[in-house]
Amino acid sequence: MKRSQRLVALTNHFLESPFEHVQLPYFSSKFKASKSSISEDLDIIDDMFRNEGIGYLKRIAGASGGVKYIPDYPKEKSIEIIDELCRLLEDPVRILPGGYLYMSDILGDPKTVRKIGRVFASAFAHLDIDVVITVATKGIPLAYAVATFLDVPVVIVRRDTKVTEGSSVSINYVSGNSRIQTMVLPKRSLKEGSNVCIIDDFMKAGGTITGMKSLLEEFHANVKAIGVLAEADDEEDERVVDDYTSLLKITNVDTRGKQIEVKRGNFNS
Amino acid sequence: MKRSQRLVALTNHFLESPFEHVQLPYFSSKFKASKSSISEDLDIIDDMFRNEGIGYLKRIAGASGGVKYIPDYPKEKSIEIIDELCRLLEDPVRILPGGYLYMSDILGDPKTVRKIGRVFASAFAHLDIDVVITVATKGIPLAYAVATFLDVPVVIVRRDTKVTEGSSVSINYVSGNSRIQTMVLPKRSLKEGSNVCIIDDFMKAGGTITGMKSLLEEFHANVKAIGVLAEADDEEDERVVDDYTSLLKITNVDTRGKQIEVKRGNFNS
Repeated sequence: MKRSQRLVALTNHFLESPFEHVQLPYFSSKFKASKSSISEDLDIIDDMFRNEGIGYLKRIAGASGGVKYIPDYPKEKSIEIIDELCRLLEDPVRILPGGYLYMSDILGDPKTVRKIGRVFASAFAHLDIDVVITVATKGIPLAYAVATFLDVPVVIVRRDTKVTEGSSVSINYVSGNSRIQTMVLPKRSLKEGSNVCIIDDFMKAGGTITGMKSLLEEFHANVKAIGVLAEADDEEDERVVDDYTSLLKITNVDTRGKQIEVKRGNFNS
Repeated sequence: MKRSQRLVALTNHFLESPFEHVQLPYFSSKFKASKSSISEDLDIIDDMFRNEGIGYLKRIAGASGGVKYIPDYPKEKSIEIIDELCRLLEDPVRILPGGYLYMSDILGDPKTVRKIGRVFASAFAHLDIDVVITVATKGIPLAYAVATFLDVPVVIVRRDTKVTEGSSVSINYVSGNSRIQTMVLPKRSLKEGSNVCIIDDFMKAGGTITGMKSLLEEFHANVKAIGVLAEADDEEDERVVDDYTSLLKITNVDTRGKQIEVKRGNFNS
């Protein structure tokens, strides 16, 4: 096989399998090429991945050596995406009664969701995350996008007990509007002592996140990171969570004047 | 830029943007290469994509001509994935009380979900789908995977009214266990007359799918395809939906003998 053909196949392989460790002999035999040819291929791919801002190839030396693709957005690119989201969200037609914001179209676009996933995954890549956790429903696509780029599974906390998942652990918690709510996680869905990353779409006072943290304590999980797409700025006084990463901060939702301000979250600070 | 470098960048571009139509001059100017060089690059990529079984590049001739990547699993590869899923699901530890099957680990693995998405997207690629629809919760990751490879948005039908989505259309329907349930879709989430593809994880008698179809009628949507990951075989007599594509058929769940049989669905027939 020619180098040009190998480069296409290898690029596809790495993009499909982030964080997967592959030893060079595997590629040598798959493509019937010498180890040194493969090694040169990897240098070209590494260069171009960096150039395109989508990450890099990490080479591991030694007997069990090999290579893996680390998806990694440069900070500038993440900021660019965040600013793009700010512009999208500032559209006043998004304002709903009660000062809520219509975001379903943005969260319904797989490409945008993938970009957001990449931003979070790049920020959390060094934290040795075992699993991404979210609560049904709106955080689910974001959680999968993050998990794809971290190459880990997703576990979904539910607000209702479903018979189809076996024995579960459940907790009650108080949400923002002082209602008592329930959260449930099937016992076999999460190993004890896992390193977890919590992902959600929106945070007001942080009641939901706090609920998830209590539930995760029951599994002796280590919450290594909390990522929320957007936080409501005006709730800052009453916030019960402080160790989170937000991409966007929604301020001054003026339902009457039909105005809204969306700023960068604490991601960059 | 050298051909080898262009090939890496172009491969990444196509894989990230299925179905996106790009005119050749765009690549010419981005990579500072002649149209004929780019054209040769595309031939190499097209060859290798077919070779790897991940689809092909479609060239459009003429003044507004260009190229787009059509993700397309060859049928054999889809069948391979279906058979792999059968083996995974036949594990008797999956049997839950009531004859249900534990599938959350499989649906929680982004790589597996992506593969399933590719299988459905390949089957439905010619149907001119505008949007993928699912009902919360378990079908969501599958819906996003399908939508990614069809390059269309996802719309999520909910079972509860959320204040955060504005005015909605809701219907009542009767589910398998004869309970009356509600389904809700925000008005602004779906354009009238859209071509839709319904995706769900599991189908017994088909009450949920029927409910979605009635709801979609309110939006004058055309249901072009229905894809379910697994169907329960023993409910076939009472089935109220017949125009669906299933990857797996679950038969003979023997809770006592701890046995279960999972066969290919109607995908291949």
